[in-house]
Amino acid sequence: MNQDYIQPDNWSIIEEGFDVERVKSSESLFSIGNGAMGQRANFEEQYSGKTFQGSYIAGIYYPDKTKVGWWKNGYPKYFAKVLNAPNWIGIDIEINGEALDLNSCTKIEKYRRELNMQEGWYNRSFTATLQNGITVEVNSRRFLSINEDEIGAIKFDITPLNQDATIIYKPYLDAGVSNEDTNWEEKFWEPLDVATDNNKGFVTAQTLKTAFKVTTYMHNSIFENDKDLQLSPLSIENEVDKTQFTYQVSVSKSIKSSIQKFGGYTVSLNHNNTLEAAKSAIEKATTIGYEQLLSDQKEAWGKIWEMSDITIKGDVKAQQGIRFNIFQLNQTYLGKDSRLNIGPKGFTGEKYGGSTYWDTEAYCIPFYMATKDQKVARNLLTYRYNQLDKAIENAEQNLGFNNGAALYPMVTMNGEECHNEWEITHEEIHRNGAIAFAIFNFYRFTGDYSYIPEKGLEVLIGIARFWHQRASYSNDKKQYVILGVTGPNEYENNINNNFYTNYIAKWCIDYTTAQLKRVAIEYPKDHKRIIEKVKLGDAEIQAWNKVASNMYFPKSEALGIYLQQDGFLDKDLVPVKDLDKAQRPINQKWSWDRVLRSPYIKQADVLQGFYFFEDHFTREELERNFDFYESFTVHESSLSPCVHSIQAAKLDKMDMAYQFYLRTSRLDLDDYNKEVEEGCHITSMAGTWMSIVEGFGGMRIKNSQLHFTPKIPKEWEAYSFKINFRNQIVTVNVSAAQSTFTVDGNQELVLNVNGKELTVAPNVVATI
Amino acid sequence: MNQDYIQPDNWSIIEEGFDVERVKSSESLFSIGNGAMGQRANFEEQYSGKTFQGSYIAGIYYPDKTKVGWWKNGYPKYFAKVLNAPNWIGIDIEINGEALDLNSCTKIEKYRRELNMQEGWYNRSFTATLQNGITVEVNSRRFLSINEDEIGAIKFDITPLNQDATIIYKPYLDAGVSNEDTNWEEKFWEPLDVATDNNKGFVTAQTLKTAFKVTTYMHNSIFENDKDLQLSPLSIENEVDKTQFTYQVSVSKSIKSSIQKFGGYTVSLNHNNTLEAAKSAIEKATTIGYEQLLSDQKEAWGKIWEMSDITIKGDVKAQQGIRFNIFQLNQTYLGKDSRLNIGPKGFTGEKYGGSTYWDTEAYCIPFYMATKDQKVARNLLTYRYNQLDKAIENAEQNLGFNNGAALYPMVTMNGEECHNEWEITHEEIHRNGAIAFAIFNFYRFTGDYSYIPEKGLEVLIGIARFWHQRASYSNDKKQYVILGVTGPNEYENNINNNFYTNYIAKWCIDYTTAQLKRVAIEYPKDHKRIIEKVKLGDAEIQAWNKVASNMYFPKSEALGIYLQQDGFLDKDLVPVKDLDKAQRPINQKWSWDRVLRSPYIKQADVLQGFYFFEDHFTREELERNFDFYESFTVHESSLSPCVHSIQAAKLDKMDMAYQFYLRTSRLDLDDYNKEVEEGCHITSMAGTWMSIVEGFGGMRIKNSQLHFTPKIPKEWEAYSFKINFRNQIVTVNVSAAQSTFTVDGNQELVLNVNGKELTVAPNVVATI
Repeated sequence: MNQDYIQPDNWSIIEEGFDVERVKSSESLFSIGNGAMGQRANFEEQYSGKTFQGSYIAGIYYPDKTKVGWWKNGYPKYFAKVLNAPNWIGIDIEINGEALDLNSCTKIEKYRRELNMQEGWYNRSFTATLQNGITVEVNSRRFLSINEDEIGAIKFDITPLNQDATIIYKPYLDAGVSNEDTNWEEKFWEPLDVATDNNKGFVTAQTLKTAFKVTTYMHNSIFENDKDLQLSPLSIENEVDKTQFTYQVSVSKSIKSSIQKFGGYTVSLNHNNTLEAAKSAIEKATTIGYEQLLSDQKEAWGKIWEMSDITIKGDVKAQQGIRFNIFQLNQTYLGKDSRLNIGPKGFTGEKYGGSTYWDTEAYCIPFYMATKDQKVARNLLTYRYNQLDKAIENAEQNLGFNNGAALYPMVTMNGEECHNEWEITHEEIHRNGAIAFAIFNFYRFTGDYSYIPEKGLEVLIGIARFWHQRASYSNDKKQYVILGVTGPNEYENNINNNFYTNYIAKWCIDYTTAQLKRVAIEYPKDHKRIIEKVKLGDAEIQAWNKVASNMYFPKSEALGIYLQQDGFLDKDLVPVKDLDKAQRPINQKWSWDRVLRSPYIKQADVLQGFYFFEDHFTREELERNFDFYESFTVHESSLSPCVHSIQAAKLDKMDMAYQFYLRTSRLDLDDYNKEVEEGCHITSMAGTWMSIVEGFGGMRIKNSQLHFTPKIPKEWEAYSFKINFRNQIVTVNVSAAQSTFTVDGNQELVLNVNGKELTVAPNVVATI
Repeated sequence: MNQDYIQPDNWSIIEEGFDVERVKSSESLFSIGNGAMGQRANFEEQYSGKTFQGSYIAGIYYPDKTKVGWWKNGYPKYFAKVLNAPNWIGIDIEINGEALDLNSCTKIEKYRRELNMQEGWYNRSFTATLQNGITVEVNSRRFLSINEDEIGAIKFDITPLNQDATIIYKPYLDAGVSNEDTNWEEKFWEPLDVATDNNKGFVTAQTLKTAFKVTTYMHNSIFENDKDLQLSPLSIENEVDKTQFTYQVSVSKSIKSSIQKFGGYTVSLNHNNTLEAAKSAIEKATTIGYEQLLSDQKEAWGKIWEMSDITIKGDVKAQQGIRFNIFQLNQTYLGKDSRLNIGPKGFTGEKYGGSTYWDTEAYCIPFYMATKDQKVARNLLTYRYNQLDKAIENAEQNLGFNNGAALYPMVTMNGEECHNEWEITHEEIHRNGAIAFAIFNFYRFTGDYSYIPEKGLEVLIGIARFWHQRASYSNDKKQYVILGVTGPNEYENNINNNFYTNYIAKWCIDYTTAQLKRVAIEYPKDHKRIIEKVKLGDAEIQAWNKVASNMYFPKSEALGIYLQQDGFLDKDLVPVKDLDKAQRPINQKWSWDRVLRSPYIKQADVLQGFYFFEDHFTREELERNFDFYESFTVHESSLSPCVHSIQAAKLDKMDMAYQFYLRTSRLDLDDYNKEVEEGCHITSMAGTWMSIVEGFGGMRIKNSQLHFTPKIPKEWEAYSFKINFRNQIVTVNVSAAQSTFTVDGNQELVLNVNGKELTVAPNVVATI
């Protein structure tokens, strides 16, 4: 953890001072993205120090051949990888015959990075003295247009401070890139074509195996004191997968020279002719122009913030943290395209192949539902609907299920399983439950039932069939059991009767049965269509219900708690507080078997069930289970503290709630786990949002009504957030003294605050 | 399974007829070895068809870099591999300008392989017509000298049948070999030197990383009608890792031409100067001569058979099966060198890196104890004693134990762990128990206590310390539990309270405590030395005993059985007989999670405990547990049927015992699992021996007395075996009508047969 790394600021992420050891971490933290593409904050100019180069295009992946020590039946042969995309940001620079390379300068001063989250741009500036004695001031600004999501822009300024300078700019496109995490050190890109036309360059390449075609383009202009010199390249060097232009200018001392580079990708997912599309993108970029694009960018981010901002008064680090999380979520996924999803590292790194985990349904959907048009969350649900056939195939071909039982993959890009640890891939089956829960949650929040007869019910049926087949009858217990699973707490593997899994399995069947009934009555045509398609009869539904109604849940009557799994109380129950700090994090300090037999919990498990199904349990039950499990939870998953924070807030353990909140909101900014250089923890960022809105704000939807029980950590003066509730924008402001609620538009809204109804007239502040 | 592949014969393994699809399987079955080196039955001449080339040298290994999909803390970084050694058997042959290659001959007749187990040689003969029209009769005989274990010999005869022939012999040595199972397709050998001297060739190479130096040598002679032509090579081609000689002869039709090749290895394990040692080996081989070596070979094998043969009358396939097993065990390990052990594939393949598994202690030691001088078994025990430091290091550094707790590796070559599946490597800890049991078993059988004060007690202490630390107290059960293990049944992973593991853990502590007391009294000097060395005090022993005396064993009172693990009765208990045959073997047909949650048992687990500790349980307990567990056992481990066979025999279920016996004794010969091409199942072969001696013969040692309860399968007329019991050779002959016992030497021996004492006078047949 490094609390002094990032400067506190309400709206920007700021790093000051150059430190070679921080370059890779900052490359992650200062990443930019626009939902369609993104990139780590790699330097434009050459850099001979340690760097992790990464550019990424949403939806473009590569199936890497699986690598294992010991093959287990059921493993996928291939493994979709987030793909390092061709580099379009590169600009090699030479000043008076010497390369500008921050790793070899004799002096670097005023080094500053700023990621301006309010306006959506990234800036890097410094003054550097090269070995040849020249001192230059450099400023580079970069952004990826939210409105025109195939367009990125760079303005790179150089002002020689102590001498006149001859500057050579060598902007390039390079498809000769590879992934750091390849299994077999293979290349993933096959170059197809390199084309140039005056200041325009195009490199077309396609991914091996998946054959996604991508044209990477650039357009360069050279300026002096912001005046376009209308230069053409002095020379162009083409290689099979690269093109590099050379421009040369001479500028006097104190005169600012600049290169402006537009660049980006056009991809075969969206265009038949990616080269022509790239030409159009350049046409659009040059027509709109850099300054207008930048001004549009500020406006576009302004609109995003208008809906999704959370303000925190009196705690700039908390403010910065929550905005960083909201900013990154929006950079990663804007919800325009149901073929895309929310990768765990977004566009900030390549770790964890695949883009889609149960994180999306369990943690991200609430954020997107509440801060975006509801079609965004619907797109996320549709993503799974579109992959239902592959989930059925996965269950059938890999795992031996039948009759349309669906098991969604643990990790996926295109619906196929992308992970190969048997204890996860084959056994962490609770993921199916979160996918069903998201369907319920979407309806609960939006009130829009139409998704269920249209698409959701088929998904639910596939999932119910899976649970029915996966449970087995214990003649010993005279109940149905689910054996050999890994629950949300991945520090237990191959356990029996994980409470969370059993509970959500039962719930899935019950919920599916109820929706079948409702659809039969309200949408008879859809009901008929679906029943015929999936060949579902009453006998089968009865068989499901037999399992659901007689499901076993492990519990301890003595302790008044549910047991995370059979046998949990056999463990050596030393609470985390008594565990030697030198032993933590246990996943780094202990061998895996020791982790497994310990009582320590990686992330909310029983408590995750209490979070999803809060209304099924009493407050006393929650408190007993929370107190028991919290004492053994090490929160070594980024997804853990948010649930504990929400529950602590509910239980009026506000200090605890606040501590959990801090842990999640600045996880990356303060580099808690010393791994931010690999990329940011995108999906857990949605959990931070939940900690405030559902935790401190106490937001719930009950019977189509928005509920709040606002509380505030004593460290804060006030905080505010907005909720798009069924197309009405509700703004909530909370301070220790009072809470206020406003509703945009022209319709009143009846809220429930602290258990009492509160009618909020439009555009009038209601105070409590 | 292929029952018609190998011709039935009492003493030989015979294949008739050439089938390209059988070449790799036969290469395994006809493998030869002499304890120090061995090789698959690869053809001497070039062969362009499918082949698996393999030559192996005992004790020579390579640490391959571990390959995993997902790293877990505690995995070893390297992984000792059985190493494919330089090829010395190769002889490229050209006849009238065309290569002799069985894959391209126009006609192959009278193709026959014979592995003569009685005399210890391998012969291959055939008549082949080449594409150039010449028909030749070929006979090749090969053996690896038991007496001179650095010397191998080949005599390769060619008789042209229809034309005169010009024959070119191109014998070679080749160190440019690689393993089929490398993790990273690396080479394992670095060539050092190639030298030649008239008919002698030497290639010296060393293993990368381990730096074992090996000189591979050859000496060639060319004969016509068995007369040495005293030819020198026509030419010699040397490469960096290879030397190949060329000899040319012309022979008339019907005249036999031959090449005789001596070859083998001299290794830095045994010699400072391997090249000089190789020269000495050639000197020895040429001095003794081929015919004398072959005649010595017959005599040496005669001696081995004299002690270890089992005869079966009335069932040639059973006879052939048991002799094949005994032959292979002796080819693999002769017990001369305590640095060596019994690899699971012996010298017949390279699968499963590492040479030493708990198979050695659990299955092989009884065979070697009863059929060899007792120093052989003592060498096997010493092997583990010599690796105690590494077992302590393994427990400490990889798994977080302390205070001298030892965990022997799951798989090893040099004492370091060579396996990397957490559920096996970290959790299949019962292996420690078998190592302690072997110490007890050695004393029980030999009556030689000296090993324990000398070496064994230190091993026992390390093991007891491990169990003490590995058990934990369950506040729920108020007993000690052992969580997160894999038992002998590897179709369960990460289970709690595996009966076998808990039982042997308790036994290890009890046994160690008892030996500490005995050594203190009988060997006070050793006791003092050891206690000081390992720093063991009474308090620690008391702490051990607290665990041992309060160990939890899962059981079902209702069923009157011990439970394989907690929760076993929650499974869907469909017996194997009701399982669809199309689903088997389940490890090939099912995904791993399905295997795990099923009730099916790969190999004896609770029953393994009953096997080791038979006297701790009543016959009724055995029967109840046997009936229960046998019904769920799929025997998909080669180590399983023998234990069930022994117990079925004890329970007078002779048909079942016989079926299990058959399954184990001809596993490879009939290729039950369609995998013999990878190599033979060497360690399970000792289980076959146990099935007869301990199962049908009912041999036990109780209170220093040899007990028998002879039974005979109805399919057999009679069988016999010998036991070297404390340097007295006991011969047991069993038929349906009677059993006879004889003792060699001049001392009478009091046996216990069917519960009654029987005094056997020396050299007089005692009949019952």
